[in-house]
Amino acid sequence: MTAVGSKCRVCKEPAVIDLPRHNAHFCAEHLQQLCRRQMTKAIDDFGMLSPDDRILVAVSGGKDSLAIWDMLVEAGYSADGLYVSLGIGDYSTESGGYVQRFADERGLNLQVIDLRQDYGYDVPTASKATGRVPCSACGLSKRRLFDRAALDGGYDVVVTGHNLDDEAAVLFGNTLRWDIDYLARQLPVLPATNGFPKKVKPLIRLTEREMAAWCLVRGIDYVVEECPIAAGNKHLAYKESLNAIEARSPGAKSAFFLGFLDRMAPLLAGHSAAAAGELNRCAECGEPTTGEVCAFCRLVEKAAKHDPVPVELVLSKRARKAYS
Amino acid sequence: MTAVGSKCRVCKEPAVIDLPRHNAHFCAEHLQQLCRRQMTKAIDDFGMLSPDDRILVAVSGGKDSLAIWDMLVEAGYSADGLYVSLGIGDYSTESGGYVQRFADERGLNLQVIDLRQDYGYDVPTASKATGRVPCSACGLSKRRLFDRAALDGGYDVVVTGHNLDDEAAVLFGNTLRWDIDYLARQLPVLPATNGFPKKVKPLIRLTEREMAAWCLVRGIDYVVEECPIAAGNKHLAYKESLNAIEARSPGAKSAFFLGFLDRMAPLLAGHSAAAAGELNRCAECGEPTTGEVCAFCRLVEKAAKHDPVPVELVLSKRARKAYS
Repeated sequence: MTAVGSKCRVCKEPAVIDLPRHNAHFCAEHLQQLCRRQMTKAIDDFGMLSPDDRILVAVSGGKDSLAIWDMLVEAGYSADGLYVSLGIGDYSTESGGYVQRFADERGLNLQVIDLRQDYGYDVPTASKATGRVPCSACGLSKRRLFDRAALDGGYDVVVTGHNLDDEAAVLFGNTLRWDIDYLARQLPVLPATNGFPKKVKPLIRLTEREMAAWCLVRGIDYVVEECPIAAGNKHLAYKESLNAIEARSPGAKSAFFLGFLDRMAPLLAGHSAAAAGELNRCAECGEPTTGEVCAFCRLVEKAAKHDPVPVELVLSKRARKAYS
Repeated sequence: MTAVGSKCRVCKEPAVIDLPRHNAHFCAEHLQQLCRRQMTKAIDDFGMLSPDDRILVAVSGGKDSLAIWDMLVEAGYSADGLYVSLGIGDYSTESGGYVQRFADERGLNLQVIDLRQDYGYDVPTASKATGRVPCSACGLSKRRLFDRAALDGGYDVVVTGHNLDDEAAVLFGNTLRWDIDYLARQLPVLPATNGFPKKVKPLIRLTEREMAAWCLVRGIDYVVEECPIAAGNKHLAYKESLNAIEARSPGAKSAFFLGFLDRMAPLLAGHSAAAAGELNRCAECGEPTTGEVCAFCRLVEKAAKHDPVPVELVLSKRARKAYS
């Protein structure tokens, strides 16, 4: 990940990674120090976690969620994991394997929800049955199941592994459309409210590349492939746009996202639809919703009735080619 | 500009241009109709002009400013031109020639200001003398001279040729930095206030490509090259980023800029520094400023004392290559 012969900025030992946005190279030890400090700064700046919190980490088997689980446990937090098996063919089987091995090797508590076994559907089927794009059906399912598991399990807070690249790309998309409702809700801490648990993102100051390096130097195995259904989606295109800007102006991505939190988010406080409107209780499950029956119950209702759809049928052309 | 054999959406005659964001092709006549309608809609939506306004058009010799002057005169407005010769070598000489011929051929009133003759400096020299990037020295000079000429000449409003691509690129840069002050001021109409004339941008709904086509079908000759000093600047890089996004999602650029005006600009009203602070009168020229002596007078003071700097000395490496 770096030029041969370069030295760590801190200790002058051989470096393992160069980080242009910090204009420096780092060895394995001081890369970890940087990651720990950036996580701690995010937690402190935004009041994400208290030392005694019972934490539920939403894990996918990718680098970010396994890294944050590792970092939190290392920092002395009490953190259990929750994995939702989404039924995305071999990709889900493989991802679940990484999560299970990570937890087993470290003696950590892992809860597993299997969409097909526990709720009678999977993401490809939900996508076809509802006409939603797969990433939308997936996100809705995961959000609701994380929320429910956290409340049922008495956790204080849900942690997700969203990193700086993820958040900047979502912000970029919301900004291109000036979706004020989404912009107003794009915060690193969503407080517990209206029947939702507190949700936080301690990796917002760290990049994908830094998290991959964390996993490498910590010996964490993770699923490297992107989700095959996500290939070609707009979120990935936004990441590419931002990467091109970052390559030209190192630090631009971080300035974009953290500058938003610092200067724009305060101006948008109170402008989300949820903040403005009253929430009802879903007639089916009792959870908060702006409608009568919540989007998740409507999705389950349609998807569980539908014949199972194999993952190949919801792949984009480009993804089918890569997947075959 | 279009595939051979395609037909105009309106009249089915052979098309001269395809516009993916309108998902259509147009012939020369109906391209003009589209341009006229978009200009009229911008003028009406934002209250830019009244039929009896005396208009001063800031012209550069490029396609946009000559096109808007042409469009306004064609629509029956009373519009004079103002050209500021910036002293950017052959580029300025050439640009001035296009403007003069345009005005002469149509019997229009053109006022010319020559920075070197009238103020004792030029843009390359101002850039070196003040340490500002050339585009900053240039923008500051033009803004102030347009303002002054409009007030001195008793004009009701200054029109500039900023098109959708220009405005979207500026917005993109301001958004990447979340520069709230600049964002709050990025409006298609700046009302007359505090000693500033009213300034409007009637081309905000039309793209560079549409304006080039307007000039082509109307037989308007203009300077095609970009300013040699601007080559490689961030503004052009932002245009490239947006063009890549537009190519993927036709209409995204317009949604970005017009969505900002529609949904975000109202939330930023009153957040500009000028709106918040008191303005003083410049001790030198008496014009409004946030300081004691205005930025323009400070620039003139330094630049006019400095030995003239030839344009080649302020070109970027890339531009020098292209220019030689």
